[in-house]
Amino acid sequence: MSAPRPTSQDGSDERYSRCGPSTFPQPALGPEGQAADHVRRGPGRPRARARRPAQGDREVDHLELEVEETVIRLLATQQPMARDLRLLVAATKIANDLERVGDHAVNIAQSAERLLAARVIAPEPELLEMARQARAMLSGALDAFVRGDAGLGREICRRDDSVDALHHSVFRILLTHMMEDPHIIGAAMDLFLVSRNLERVADLATNIAEDVVFVVEGKTIKHHAEG
Amino acid sequence: MSAPRPTSQDGSDERYSRCGPSTFPQPALGPEGQAADHVRRGPGRPRARARRPAQGDREVDHLELEVEETVIRLLATQQPMARDLRLLVAATKIANDLERVGDHAVNIAQSAERLLAARVIAPEPELLEMARQARAMLSGALDAFVRGDAGLGREICRRDDSVDALHHSVFRILLTHMMEDPHIIGAAMDLFLVSRNLERVADLATNIAEDVVFVVEGKTIKHHAEG
Repeated sequence: MSAPRPTSQDGSDERYSRCGPSTFPQPALGPEGQAADHVRRGPGRPRARARRPAQGDREVDHLELEVEETVIRLLATQQPMARDLRLLVAATKIANDLERVGDHAVNIAQSAERLLAARVIAPEPELLEMARQARAMLSGALDAFVRGDAGLGREICRRDDSVDALHHSVFRILLTHMMEDPHIIGAAMDLFLVSRNLERVADLATNIAEDVVFVVEGKTIKHHAEG
Repeated sequence: MSAPRPTSQDGSDERYSRCGPSTFPQPALGPEGQAADHVRRGPGRPRARARRPAQGDREVDHLELEVEETVIRLLATQQPMARDLRLLVAATKIANDLERVGDHAVNIAQSAERLLAARVIAPEPELLEMARQARAMLSGALDAFVRGDAGLGREICRRDDSVDALHHSVFRILLTHMMEDPHIIGAAMDLFLVSRNLERVADLATNIAEDVVFVVEGKTIKHHAEG
């Protein structure tokens, strides 16, 4: 059942040929610009900013469908092979990953709205660090995709453990705070949700980085298939 | 940029032609059999059952890669068109969705382990109902895929709101319990995580059901594109 996957080693930082990323629609405001920074908004900042992601999310949803239509059209009309074929298959997956990043951005914004209304606790420094790392991973994964840089892709994958560790720290810290002061439980749950959403954004950035390695090298490193 | 998608209305309950589901590897124990039932395991049942999903998850991960390899091989060698092409694109997405269901099953099993060790609270009836509905949705979505039944696919999509509503109920109930008795906060957080994972399983079942409609009718109902 399992066929040998065509392998090409045509340079890890070479730009994509023929049907490269420029074939696909470019977002005016990508999920990368939406996701991680909502958590940095402290109490007292204008609440209008927390409402913007819903509009941006619809745009991301629409762009995902456009990418999928473009891929199906190219598959039907161009009969792409090897790296071009891998790029098209990866493009639908990456578009789906980015659509999910957009969903997480909306979730974070909704928690931010509630946290701003309650004003009972400030986010932990660990949460701000998670936001910084998750955003950097997403940005790096997209750079790796655009540049066809498998080396950068692998580096991004290695950073996921750090965000996971921060998520566990945030969980333990919030649990302690909730035990000490039950009045903050609602707000602490929202901070936990933000942490969970950031952890998922880092996972999705890792998926994208894995797909970059697959496109460039024809080699699957997903699910730690490299060992 | 957006090309008109090829549309075919070749019967909603007709079996898939040429590269139908039988082309793909069959799991010995699918994520459907893993995900929703971990939550039904009450205190006192053997804990060994909660450890099984890690092994099953690796098998699901492996099967996802096999599906992807099969799709790429078929795209490269068969130049499929119209419905066959849509089926192959959908197959990679569905395999990815099922891999994520497997991850959620592992998460639920991990929470189940901790809940069994703590034995401080029993799951809410709403949570058991969520497990029942999420499992039924996943099973229905896979039936719809195997049978090529767009009508069943649409029905599954409509059921997602019910699971979302139950998730919100569980959240409110747990919040109240935590406020009343801070000693159960840790366990309540785990029940909340189980609820969140079940909600995501229902979302993934909905994704699969949407893809079935897309394969059969060439029509996108994702992101409520139908209005």
